[in-house]
Amino acid sequence: MESREVELNERGNGVAAADREARREQSSTKVVVGGGSDDDDDDRLQNSVERIFERKDVPSWREQLTVRAFVVSFVLGVLFTFIVMKLNLTTGIIPSLNVSAGLLGFFFVKTWTKFLDKSGMLRQPFTRQENTVIQTCVVATSGIAFSGGFGSYIFGMSEIIAKQSTEANNPQNIKNPQLSWMIGFLVVVSFLGLFSVVPLRKIMIIDFKLTYPSGTATAHLINSFHTPQGAKLAKKQVKALGKFFSFSFLWGFFQWFFTAGDGCGFNSFPTFGLKAYQNKFYFDFSATYVGVGMICPYIINASLLVGSILSWGIMWPLIAKKKGHWFPADIPASSLHGLQGYKVFIAIAMILGDGLYNFLKVLHRTLFGLFSQLRKKDKGVLPVAVAERTSTVAASYDDARRTELFLKDQIPTLVAIGGYVTIAVVSIIILPHIFHQLKWYYVLVIYIFAPILAFCNAYGCGLTDWSLASTYGKLAIFIIGAWAGSAHGGVIAGLAACGVMMNIVSTASDLMQDFKTGYMTLASPRSMFISQVIGTAMGCVISPCVFWLFYKAFHNLGVTGSEYPAPYATVYRNMAILGVEGFSALPKDCLNLCYVFFAAAIAINLIRDLVGKKWSRFIPLPMAMAIPFYLGSYFAIDMCVGSVILFVWQKLNKAKADAFGPAVASGLICGDGIWTLPSSILALAGVNPPICMKFLSRTANAKVDAFLGS
Amino acid sequence: MESREVELNERGNGVAAADREARREQSSTKVVVGGGSDDDDDDRLQNSVERIFERKDVPSWREQLTVRAFVVSFVLGVLFTFIVMKLNLTTGIIPSLNVSAGLLGFFFVKTWTKFLDKSGMLRQPFTRQENTVIQTCVVATSGIAFSGGFGSYIFGMSEIIAKQSTEANNPQNIKNPQLSWMIGFLVVVSFLGLFSVVPLRKIMIIDFKLTYPSGTATAHLINSFHTPQGAKLAKKQVKALGKFFSFSFLWGFFQWFFTAGDGCGFNSFPTFGLKAYQNKFYFDFSATYVGVGMICPYIINASLLVGSILSWGIMWPLIAKKKGHWFPADIPASSLHGLQGYKVFIAIAMILGDGLYNFLKVLHRTLFGLFSQLRKKDKGVLPVAVAERTSTVAASYDDARRTELFLKDQIPTLVAIGGYVTIAVVSIIILPHIFHQLKWYYVLVIYIFAPILAFCNAYGCGLTDWSLASTYGKLAIFIIGAWAGSAHGGVIAGLAACGVMMNIVSTASDLMQDFKTGYMTLASPRSMFISQVIGTAMGCVISPCVFWLFYKAFHNLGVTGSEYPAPYATVYRNMAILGVEGFSALPKDCLNLCYVFFAAAIAINLIRDLVGKKWSRFIPLPMAMAIPFYLGSYFAIDMCVGSVILFVWQKLNKAKADAFGPAVASGLICGDGIWTLPSSILALAGVNPPICMKFLSRTANAKVDAFLGS
Repeated sequence: MESREVELNERGNGVAAADREARREQSSTKVVVGGGSDDDDDDRLQNSVERIFERKDVPSWREQLTVRAFVVSFVLGVLFTFIVMKLNLTTGIIPSLNVSAGLLGFFFVKTWTKFLDKSGMLRQPFTRQENTVIQTCVVATSGIAFSGGFGSYIFGMSEIIAKQSTEANNPQNIKNPQLSWMIGFLVVVSFLGLFSVVPLRKIMIIDFKLTYPSGTATAHLINSFHTPQGAKLAKKQVKALGKFFSFSFLWGFFQWFFTAGDGCGFNSFPTFGLKAYQNKFYFDFSATYVGVGMICPYIINASLLVGSILSWGIMWPLIAKKKGHWFPADIPASSLHGLQGYKVFIAIAMILGDGLYNFLKVLHRTLFGLFSQLRKKDKGVLPVAVAERTSTVAASYDDARRTELFLKDQIPTLVAIGGYVTIAVVSIIILPHIFHQLKWYYVLVIYIFAPILAFCNAYGCGLTDWSLASTYGKLAIFIIGAWAGSAHGGVIAGLAACGVMMNIVSTASDLMQDFKTGYMTLASPRSMFISQVIGTAMGCVISPCVFWLFYKAFHNLGVTGSEYPAPYATVYRNMAILGVEGFSALPKDCLNLCYVFFAAAIAINLIRDLVGKKWSRFIPLPMAMAIPFYLGSYFAIDMCVGSVILFVWQKLNKAKADAFGPAVASGLICGDGIWTLPSSILALAGVNPPICMKFLSRTANAKVDAFLGS
Repeated sequence: MESREVELNERGNGVAAADREARREQSSTKVVVGGGSDDDDDDRLQNSVERIFERKDVPSWREQLTVRAFVVSFVLGVLFTFIVMKLNLTTGIIPSLNVSAGLLGFFFVKTWTKFLDKSGMLRQPFTRQENTVIQTCVVATSGIAFSGGFGSYIFGMSEIIAKQSTEANNPQNIKNPQLSWMIGFLVVVSFLGLFSVVPLRKIMIIDFKLTYPSGTATAHLINSFHTPQGAKLAKKQVKALGKFFSFSFLWGFFQWFFTAGDGCGFNSFPTFGLKAYQNKFYFDFSATYVGVGMICPYIINASLLVGSILSWGIMWPLIAKKKGHWFPADIPASSLHGLQGYKVFIAIAMILGDGLYNFLKVLHRTLFGLFSQLRKKDKGVLPVAVAERTSTVAASYDDARRTELFLKDQIPTLVAIGGYVTIAVVSIIILPHIFHQLKWYYVLVIYIFAPILAFCNAYGCGLTDWSLASTYGKLAIFIIGAWAGSAHGGVIAGLAACGVMMNIVSTASDLMQDFKTGYMTLASPRSMFISQVIGTAMGCVISPCVFWLFYKAFHNLGVTGSEYPAPYATVYRNMAILGVEGFSALPKDCLNLCYVFFAAAIAINLIRDLVGKKWSRFIPLPMAMAIPFYLGSYFAIDMCVGSVILFVWQKLNKAKADAFGPAVASGLICGDGIWTLPSSILALAGVNPPICMKFLSRTANAKVDAFLGS
């Protein structure tokens, strides 16, 4: 279930995978904290976990779905939607939040039940199955904040983003956000993925025994919480989370007072001087990204920094000198025909290169795995790729018990297929009414191919923990966009098609991760499915509302260089323009540079895979390098600060850092994230911050003093 | 030896006494850290201390005076002169720095001897006597930075301070600082005190057995360092000090970059909003004053805050509303005929009221103690006041051994008297050449009365740890000032007389504190005396040079509201003007308010003494309340932050906080203090900070943006 969130940073679960890999290398403690567990742990614990829980009754699937679970899910869903939305609109890098979701869900219900227990009113004890239901529901809700594309395809249709480019900004290719059509759109596309993979869950989980590392990690977390020792640790972790939550919230509040105007406040602090600030090298005091840096593995943060130095430190200053030669000197700084064009398109080239490489890699592994799976299955032998992992634990007690409960509550295949067809038909009818550029036959084509891609993605994700949803989305942008053509609003058609595709594919892999979690915590597949349906329904309403709050509250949402630049909105729109209009609009030599970086992204990935783990951990990830190309280095510096803090903490007290690092990081992220709620309400109410903390050069300051004095 | 430094805050050793009192109430650990020891400890250890050191040889007085001791003293003398000078020129509150002086002195020589020992070149081991010599010398050197009056009477003579008032700012009453005459002045007045009390040392220490709490505490510190366990703790403390020293230094360095212009940088940070900032309520991120707040007892910091709220929160805003009624509306803000006059003179009234009360109190105790001492001595019985303290340990082994060594090396009384008369004659000839307003007969009168006052001060300090040097100085301002009269430069004559008086009286009490330390560490009185002479000589050169550096480097030294407002320079000058010209210059109702606050200061002190310890710790000290009246609340807030940090630390880990609190605080103070050295060198070299961190209201910011944009 981690997949949906980490997908936001365009690397799919790769980040989570790298994270886990990094932790596996470092970890020496036995404490299971979120992503900290792996298959080896799994093997070691396999024989014991269900024995520990043997005496505990498993509630029926109806009992697993409690009202309190959905109340807590709703509260946490709103919290995480805010966080994800903020991350969407600032940098697009979103870490795995499932540790904090798990922790907070456990904390809320545990407090609730403890209170009821003491007052003698507790009718039903809190079980790990119920915890799984909450986790699933929260992730489904907040996941919509990503797959809804508010930081990418949906916002990319808007006038604000369109006006920043001179290409395709006619009314035909613009559709401004509105609460009504966004909710409608999400309702008709979000449920489709749920139905598309349900029939295959037995094959994926029981027969193929796929790993789903994120789902497994989450299951470990939940199982650990419900042992007495785990509950004690969880309590301490919640305390640490709460402390840093408050700190981060108050820090956000304090910062707010000093942001009366653009370029004011701590997030414009020229920590390394004004010259460095102009090239976006500064520490912006963001608790969120320090926390994100603590969760992301070192290699991600290092890659971001390398990318920053390469782009803002070297390339952009060099290209800027070519002003008047390579690009016209008299165009505004935000024009894609100038320096901005190099930034955006080189970043797109790297993202596409990395995406292509990983698409091919995962596809290859998927097909190979599937092929050997099917071949061996006929012979009654486990497939090679999977046999490695499960050979020692075949038909263990845990497996037997889990399989028994997993097969107890069925979801009839007819329901799944019927649901899919019904929603698809409704969707085909409604979508062209929302986006008149998106013809009904485009949608039909997508819906014919989607289940196959959804299956591929769910299978690949089970093997590699890598969701390729955004890659499939980009594929849709180019194909449908080119098909529609510029004159018929190809940009909007492409972006809408991307949304349709991404929602299906992403939901499918997430659902399968959840089934894996449910399998390992003995939660019923039926309750999981219902929880996902409810969570998705909540997300379809909450996410557009939260986005709407941001959209109305912050007047410069989506403007380059502002507090909320929404970088992927620009990137997605420009991909659509590229797909529709070709390369003609690019400034001089930009296309050549794009080829170079496209090739470099593939080459670096290839080298990383060839040299082996020992050296690959020193080679940066091209996807992570590409993000600061467009945005600047400030968040990379925040994240490196987070890395340094974690590194020093691990040197001082490794066990404590490993146990509480994720909780502290979650606290930092959540506190700052939830501060955006009061902050946007203040903005809506017209309450402006009173003070501007401004940074002026000495000469400018002398001028200003003279001006203010007179 | 603590006395000279704490005297800087105008409360004499009262701060140290309150500090010790506060700690005595709180302390539960046995660790002796600077002022943390008291008489009870003394009693408990009395029978054992000299037994522990029994096998260690006491070096001869010549061997106690080593070259390395004076090299280290010189280095530390410069360091502490910088710190004291900075504190002088910012708020005038100076905490006891003898813990850090002791720690660093021990650390430097220990490292030095360890290094030599390893290379086989160590000829003489490091003894506690040598440590006492260093401590004495460092305090003598840095003490001149206070008693030299660079933040009070000397700087009060300058044109910068004079120009801020419309009274007595004719050339007759102005004398600008110059390196030559300042060194000359210090040389002729600083040594006199040394000779004045030497003949009485046997009476004070051996016969009267006076306590000298600061001297005793310092002796405990030094004795503890030279036991193996003490040395280990000292090493850890030095490490903590070093860590916070670096942090504080780097923080000062970082802050520097953002101070291009007035009202720029962290020390103008409107932490609680612009409105509060205008009334000087803000946290100015000064590591120095956070450290000072950690060293000062809670009651001092609370008193500062109460004074801040009373003055800047209530009184000044109310008086400001009377503009046009109580005082003319068209005069500049810094004029003493306006609001500034109320601030300065009400503060002076409280300082004088507090001073008068404590003068009478100490005088009463001195005379009473002396009287009973003399009466009982005739009967061969110990005096009452002293008997309480020493009854249990009379004629113990420690006392016997200490007395034996204390009486071994004599300083002939003839040398002392001869020295005093010679220097007095030289002084009487030279001083009128430096200050032509100060007639030779004024000086003669001072020198006739000075030994009596010096004796009183040394005796009172021995009983109460309270040096009244600045009170005697103020007495000289009024008497000599009035005698000279306005037309004959009475202001300069008064200020110069204050300097002459303060130097003698302050040195006398300090020297006696040192003799007590020497008595308890078996250091020879002769080596102590020579060390003081050398330290004073170094101070006479170092202090004016350091002041000169500040004076040349910071163009707005002494300007109200600037980074270095030198508050006591204004206060002392205005006391002199008051003495010379009377109350005619004060704005309406100011005199009445002054009477009220003068009486209130006496009343509060009286109540504090009457209600007993249980309640008096909740009653603020009038002296501490008066300081923010003139300066504002920012440093009070810094110091309260220090208090809060220490309080929380003590709650979390009392033993650790008590052992390392003073070291951490010293590190914060020293690091920031020594940063002023590079900072002033940068200023002298014309290197200006590049960035201004400016704080503007939203409307001002909009204007500025429009101005910069056009």
